[in-house]
Amino acid sequence: RINGNRLWADIVATARFGGTDNGGVTRLTLTEEDRHVRDWFIAECRSLGCTIEIDRIGNIFATYPGEDPSLQPIAVGSHLDTQPQGGRFDGILGVLAGVELIRTLKETATVLRHGLTVVNWTNEEGSRFSPAMMGSGVFAGASRLEAIEAVRDRDGTSVLSALEAIGYRGETLVGHLGFAAYVELHIEQGPLLEAAATEIGIVTGVQGVRWFDVSISGTEAHAGSTPMAQRDDALVAASEIVLAVRDIARRHPPGVGTVGFASVGPNSRNVVPGSVQLQIDMRHPSEAGLDQMQAALEQAIEASHSNIALRHIWSKQPVVFDPAIVDAVRANAAALGLSATEVVSGAGHDAAHIAGICPTAMIFVPSKDGLSHNEAEYSSPEECSRGADVLLQTVLQIDLK
Amino acid sequence: RINGNRLWADIVATARFGGTDNGGVTRLTLTEEDRHVRDWFIAECRSLGCTIEIDRIGNIFATYPGEDPSLQPIAVGSHLDTQPQGGRFDGILGVLAGVELIRTLKETATVLRHGLTVVNWTNEEGSRFSPAMMGSGVFAGASRLEAIEAVRDRDGTSVLSALEAIGYRGETLVGHLGFAAYVELHIEQGPLLEAAATEIGIVTGVQGVRWFDVSISGTEAHAGSTPMAQRDDALVAASEIVLAVRDIARRHPPGVGTVGFASVGPNSRNVVPGSVQLQIDMRHPSEAGLDQMQAALEQAIEASHSNIALRHIWSKQPVVFDPAIVDAVRANAAALGLSATEVVSGAGHDAAHIAGICPTAMIFVPSKDGLSHNEAEYSSPEECSRGADVLLQTVLQIDLK
Ligand SMILES: NC(=O)NCCC(=O)O
Ligand SMILES: NC(=O)NCCC(=O)O
Repeated sequence: RINGNRLWADIVATARFGGTDNGGVTRLTLTEEDRHVRDWFIAECRSLGCTIEIDRIGNIFATYPGEDPSLQPIAVGSHLDTQPQGGRFDGILGVLAGVELIRTLKETATVLRHGLTVVNWTNEEGSRFSPAMMGSGVFAGASRLEAIEAVRDRDGTSVLSALEAIGYRGETLVGHLGFAAYVELHIEQGPLLEAAATEIGIVTGVQGVRWFDVSISGTEAHAGSTPMAQRDDALVAASEIVLAVRDIARRHPPGVGTVGFASVGPNSRNVVPGSVQLQIDMRHPSEAGLDQMQAALEQAIEASHSNIALRHIWSKQPVVFDPAIVDAVRANAAALGLSATEVVSGAGHDAAHIAGICPTAMIFVPSKDGLSHNEAEYSSPEECSRGADVLLQTVLQIDLK
Repeated sequence: RINGNRLWADIVATARFGGTDNGGVTRLTLTEEDRHVRDWFIAECRSLGCTIEIDRIGNIFATYPGEDPSLQPIAVGSHLDTQPQGGRFDGILGVLAGVELIRTLKETATVLRHGLTVVNWTNEEGSRFSPAMMGSGVFAGASRLEAIEAVRDRDGTSVLSALEAIGYRGETLVGHLGFAAYVELHIEQGPLLEAAATEIGIVTGVQGVRWFDVSISGTEAHAGSTPMAQRDDALVAASEIVLAVRDIARRHPPGVGTVGFASVGPNSRNVVPGSVQLQIDMRHPSEAGLDQMQAALEQAIEASHSNIALRHIWSKQPVVFDPAIVDAVRANAAALGLSATEVVSGAGHDAAHIAGICPTAMIFVPSKDGLSHNEAEYSSPEECSRGADVLLQTVLQIDLK
């Protein structure tokens, strides 16, 4: 068993990197705050005797050696970046649990056959740079490094220069390392486990995602002297799209659709808006469901009288995790006497990319009120600790084979 | 007659203060750009022999002396500030025409009985600081100076410190000066004159305005893992308000309603929006129409399931201009052989405040495609020149009485 107090102390300690006044965290990828938490993570792992590798896209691999160097390491981990005004658990729990596993192995002088690698994947959140799960995506071959290095944030900074600015453009070729298996512990970020009063989520897969950018061009005009019939108001057109996205998702259960970002120009009370940018996120557990949602979105935009450009900027197909690792999670939750239920992840995770290159699964712990991407995000010390225990036992079982 | 080429040259010259790449102007009130155009205006008027007074709220009065110092001066003018990505004519035309009137008087050695004061009113646009027509409102006693000095922009800068920062907090007590009459030349900013193929608008009054701030609190949540039925999406609620404002205006012709400003938090694609701020502008030529529009807005907000705070932050009642000055405008347009039509201004103007303290009217010239608050805003040299000629003749007629 891991030491739950020690794990909780790390959660509290790392929440200060980018900590907000409301008890949340704003630690966007490849910012100074991200650099500080990365530095902390590396120092901690070095002190435990890990070797550190950093690849070209800034993914960090901290490996605690095993008995047999000819075996590929078993990997655990998640991400250290957060959303703006995000929470203290999303991502970092999986990384800190990995560190705690190594402490537990060391303390109990347990030597695994495989090495144990704790990974921090770069830009899982996708808020500053699109797409999400960027580091694991390049690692797994879903994106080309050169294309991703050129992606820019809204201030025009590229991924490449952001990596260099914080000193995390590493030397290791991306995807150069191979793993025997990958297991990711994460908070659920949704309401299912809490509603079922279940301690552990056995994650069998991840639903699919499509991202779209929308650019609406209207005509700036005076808000007082321009008759209603002569307006081409970009915010009115945008509002119709926001509601259409909601309606499309409702018509395709259990799909979800969100406009999380909107920017208005010139954004002055007495000017009819001339331009609006929207960012859309659509998800569904089936590819067919995503196709239908996208078609409905395209129809809604075609039916509009406004000048609207829709760009489909990213897709991630639904993923099914490795049955053997999923079974191992189920068996070890049961062995620990924990209640557990199968779930398909609504959120995207690095594990969804890594599933393409090695046997992979995930473990969820409950999120209070189902909240995440929110400063009030919370999982109790006991919940976190149970998840890390299942992670440890699952790693031990994989190591045995 | 004024010199149209000279007036046009001034329009071109002043468009460089805050000039944009697309031929527009961004010269928000009390910014460095505003300071530069104010400095230019004062230097120009001084060189013509005007005395300059600047009051506590930064209104500038440039007075060309008349024969009889016991008479109050006749005032003309408008404003030098613009919207973000605004045009080259909105406001400044009325000020430059005033300068051109003085040049014409001087050149022809014409001495009026009254002095002629050219005024630049501070913050007519109301984009950076609310409300609009701020300087003329304090001057006419519609707002208290102390309250207005404390108004802050979105960066937290107060009117008072912005005035001090650009060196335009003057010594003259606000409202200390009195005028025999006020006549304001302005572009129409709407489509009526162009549609009627008319050269001059005889402005009989200004419609009423109400401004509202809306604050919507939803719940930030994960865009992938939060079921549609469990969301409290502030942008969805905001979109319903944007469409409601449009629908309310359509149901109350000739009223207009606009949401010109929206800001979303945390504004990240994969986060269900937790907060939205909106700024609403509603107008109607009758106070009863405004009451009905406001009641409908309040109803729409009460009917919403979201947590929405509505604040009514500013009103300006409909204004009827002085019949004698309106008649003078009509007569002088006719005497100059210009086609003219009566209009009620859809846009707000400083003249609407000054009408409360002295006989006031306005002269409009056409706006190409009815566009204003737009970089493409345009009135031809001939149109501007005709408006200034009517202004000159109207001032001469007022002076005779
Ligand atoms: N787990 C998580 O919050 N991922 C961020 C990427 C996404 O699914 O939107
Ligand atoms: N004339 C003009 O553009 N005024 C700005 C204030 C307003 O009417 O919205």
